Amino acid sequence: MAKRVGQKTLVFEHAPQIVSFASVGGKMEGEGPLANGFTILTEDDKLGQDSWEKAESCLQASAISHALKSARLQAEQINLHLGGDLLNQCIATNFAMRNYPIPLTGLYGACSTFALALGMGALAVDAGGFDYISTAASSHFCSAEKQFRFPLEYGGQPTPTAQRTATAAGAVILAPNETPETQGICVSAAVFGHVLDYGVSDPNEMGAAMAPAAFDTIAQFLRDTQTAPQDYDLILTGDLGAIGSRLLLELANRDNLVLRDVHRDCGLLLYDIQKQDAGAGGSGIGCSAAVLCASILPQMRDGKLKRVLFVGTGALLSAITPLQGENIPAIAHAALLENRTHQ
Amino acid sequence: MAKRVGQKTLVFEHAPQIVSFASVGGKMEGEGPLANGFTILTEDDKLGQDSWEKAESCLQASAISHALKSARLQAEQINLHLGGDLLNQCIATNFAMRNYPIPLTGLYGACSTFALALGMGALAVDAGGFDYISTAASSHFCSAEKQFRFPLEYGGQPTPTAQRTATAAGAVILAPNETPETQGICVSAAVFGHVLDYGVSDPNEMGAAMAPAAFDTIAQFLRDTQTAPQDYDLILTGDLGAIGSRLLLELANRDNLVLRDVHRDCGLLLYDIQKQDAGAGGSGIGCSAAVLCASILPQMRDGKLKRVLFVGTGALLSAITPLQGENIPAIAHAALLENRTHQ
Repeated sequence: MAKRVGQKTLVFEHAPQIVSFASVGGKMEGEGPLANGFTILTEDDKLGQDSWEKAESCLQASAISHALKSARLQAEQINLHLGGDLLNQCIATNFAMRNYPIPLTGLYGACSTFALALGMGALAVDAGGFDYISTAASSHFCSAEKQFRFPLEYGGQPTPTAQRTATAAGAVILAPNETPETQGICVSAAVFGHVLDYGVSDPNEMGAAMAPAAFDTIAQFLRDTQTAPQDYDLILTGDLGAIGSRLLLELANRDNLVLRDVHRDCGLLLYDIQKQDAGAGGSGIGCSAAVLCASILPQMRDGKLKRVLFVGTGALLSAITPLQGENIPAIAHAALLENRTHQ
Repeated sequence: MAKRVGQKTLVFEHAPQIVSFASVGGKMEGEGPLANGFTILTEDDKLGQDSWEKAESCLQASAISHALKSARLQAEQINLHLGGDLLNQCIATNFAMRNYPIPLTGLYGACSTFALALGMGALAVDAGGFDYISTAASSHFCSAEKQFRFPLEYGGQPTPTAQRTATAAGAVILAPNETPETQGICVSAAVFGHVLDYGVSDPNEMGAAMAPAAFDTIAQFLRDTQTAPQDYDLILTGDLGAIGSRLLLELANRDNLVLRDVHRDCGLLLYDIQKQDAGAGGSGIGCSAAVLCASILPQMRDGKLKRVLFVGTGALLSAITPLQGENIPAIAHAALLENRTHQ
């Protein structure tokens, strides 16, 4: 059962276990600092497909398959899948899931989707009735550029404040904490965020649009649980990039919360942004999913990190909303990940 | 707590209650056979906005506001909202939810989204930690035509097999069944469907694409619960339209399941399809959401219907997938609605 603590935080009394995880990355991700942590890397960003959209579906299906393999599970043993992506009508997810006979709950929370999937997945596991629940999320630089910005062939130049959509996917399999497969990592709490509009309207400044939502969710969680930033080994946002991360620290400072020592951002971990020319850092649903599965969960498994607050941040826009003069509202969902065996 | 029965059906031991519901419809919906059941109808399909997308957000926000009002609840009392729509990046939902300080889980299941929201909402209520959970979904003829087909100004002619996207929204508020506000209607079970691809590839034949998914989910539920169609007052699909409904009955007949007497389709209930020139019937997420809230739930409240299996069906495509030669996979999610006070 789940229990509400404070105003909005849900604590899972039998914290669902993460029984396996997997990450898949493209060429540029394989040249970045996290390359060694990926389950699989591809040199061919098209993955042998004839469209970027199909390539993204393959990325996501590959992450799911590797997570299943790592847990020694067949798809038939999974009772529910929660996942999403950035493409119109979530086609990367929906077409990837043609390959699996797993009941599907499609989620959309822009780049917050993977944190949302972990939170909702843990809630569902805690409700009972499930042996295993899988989660996955993906993004692809080329399908996103084509859909949200310009055709690749146009060779459009990004602004320095723009983030680079990751070509990556991540998958996590959850189970009730009675199963023997536990690696010791569990999802012990979650906060679902609400939509915040701070008036940012430049789609090349999405870090700025999302920072207030990240701050709101982090502050809510700390208030609800009566804890402080130093109670966590890591508060991991995904993905504010360089500018959004700076704004988050500023917003927190105003509230006397010092996040500097404990905060890292997936968008700044995936690439060496100077050397790899990655603008203000990585973004896209696959960025936080892959950073979590390629770097953070391995460190948690090894006991190097024990308590991680994973905060997915989403910019809520489509290609037409900025053209219609709309602001970019944002949302942030958080999942608390703990390795209790090392505590 | 939820309990799995058979292979895939989740039974909610403390079946969450539907404490209120509301429906909003546009001009054509107000000229149809369900007009009297709508909470509110608008003559102006633009709802005073300067874009169809903003109008759809208003539809959805209006349904939520009326459901809150009917339950005498403030938005602050709602702990979680589950909702979605058909627009790219679910902007109708995300922009509607700017108006409410309610934590948001964005869902995408094409036209199955409202059934998915009820199923996931009931699961979340059953997990504990929530006083109230709201759900909503919408579609708008003009925003959908513009996005998926042609600009309205072009005056494109639909094929007779095409369905008409409803300009409508529905909202339901759920609560644990200890609360006193119960009207006697509860969500007592759910089946989440998986993605099925039967090789249909014509986006003007979406009923045909979805019928196999509807059949799969209905047959799964009946097998899991060891019940027969006649155990239900109504098996309500949304939205197969005229062609998909006929195919569903044929598929069921092959399996010796006689659905004819008990099956109705939201797409055939919303409009008088002959008089109103509605092609093969209504469709769009708002169609099933509005038919449920404007017609079915009122009949359940009055004891005229006691056990209704609500089966949302979604065609999983985007504007580009048919152009890339893809089939149209489909999914169907079911929620069992019961009025136990009249049993």
